[in-house]
Amino acid sequence: MVEKSLSICVVGGTGAEGSGLALRWAQAGHKVTIGSRDVSKAQSVAAELNAILGKDLVVGVDSKAGSSSADIVVLTVPFKAQLSTVELLRDELAGKILIDVTVPLVPPKVSQVQLPDHGSCVVGVQQKLGSKTRVVSAFQNVSAHKLKDLKVEIDCDVLVAADDKEARETGISLAKDAGLRGIDVGPLANSVVAESMTSVLIGINRKYKVPDAGIRITGVGVAQLNQ
Amino acid sequence: MVEKSLSICVVGGTGAEGSGLALRWAQAGHKVTIGSRDVSKAQSVAAELNAILGKDLVVGVDSKAGSSSADIVVLTVPFKAQLSTVELLRDELAGKILIDVTVPLVPPKVSQVQLPDHGSCVVGVQQKLGSKTRVVSAFQNVSAHKLKDLKVEIDCDVLVAADDKEARETGISLAKDAGLRGIDVGPLANSVVAESMTSVLIGINRKYKVPDAGIRITGVGVAQLNQ
Repeated sequence: MVEKSLSICVVGGTGAEGSGLALRWAQAGHKVTIGSRDVSKAQSVAAELNAILGKDLVVGVDSKAGSSSADIVVLTVPFKAQLSTVELLRDELAGKILIDVTVPLVPPKVSQVQLPDHGSCVVGVQQKLGSKTRVVSAFQNVSAHKLKDLKVEIDCDVLVAADDKEARETGISLAKDAGLRGIDVGPLANSVVAESMTSVLIGINRKYKVPDAGIRITGVGVAQLNQ
Repeated sequence: MVEKSLSICVVGGTGAEGSGLALRWAQAGHKVTIGSRDVSKAQSVAAELNAILGKDLVVGVDSKAGSSSADIVVLTVPFKAQLSTVELLRDELAGKILIDVTVPLVPPKVSQVQLPDHGSCVVGVQQKLGSKTRVVSAFQNVSAHKLKDLKVEIDCDVLVAADDKEARETGISLAKDAGLRGIDVGPLANSVVAESMTSVLIGINRKYKVPDAGIRITGVGVAQLNQ
């Protein structure tokens, strides 16, 4: 179990990536809600997760209410809904850490990197929210269906970027609680790597006919991570 | 030894990354020249590499002459010299494959990703050269000093991007000849990942006090790579 149980609202947690993270954090001992505009859908996904957990730990809620009462909000919505969702939750996010998992895929060419002119999309989120919210970028490259299988050790690192050091450390800690290795990659602008990597991994899956390509940072061991 | 020996000119090969690649390709059986504006410096680096190889295999030449007579040109210059060098060699590069290794580091914040507005710098090189030259992006993330030690097995993959499939395969093949694993990451635009990754790796080296962080693509094995 985790040292300190946090209250986490996973907005867009009805999707594959968000529900996978919710599952793993609930199992680790955090108090997790699934946030959606569609509360009944959120409740239905929460029920699915609770069936896997064998305990009623996860609750489905409205995104605004869930964000309001959470310590930490996690954004796992489709790219086209990223900025509008952030706009909708602006007041609820003030004073909090927002962990943005959004992957900037632009259909139909989802395996081609298509970042906006300013580079990182998450930097755009931080600009929209202003300094009241500390934004973290993380988890874009982790296979959703592997998160869903609690027995699986996932062979993929989480690149964690944020301008605020404490917020970055919270992201790294939440990666650990999800059974993953979080790597500090510095300022939010460096989120470009994780945001563009997902298109590349999708292309690799197609090219090499593999289900779940991922990434590892080499040359950094347990001793360095815990120093 | 390689199946087919190619004539390769490493422009900017007096630097650490370029000379490391030149060394490994010469050892593998390719005919390698070090190209520089300063021929005596190129000759001096070639002599150093030949001392390591124990044979006179590498020759120092003027960049223009070397590019003119090579099958493949490899660009390993500092970022600020990337476009001017390409402009200088435009005629020599026509009809050839150019492998661009340039890393877009912007001092003093070299550990912060600072790509230009259009994303990948290598895409800018392809636009400058036009369709007569097939541009490949590769090798940005490989530790220079590990390349220099022929006994070292380098724990880092090479992300190879190009719009032309045959050119991409040539890049992958040259990664193999340098003792590395080349991964096909699709179109040149996807070079954003490798170009931004180097800043992140420099930051990781500093943060975790390690000499040579690298990257690996997980979930892709030998069987898939050789299919």
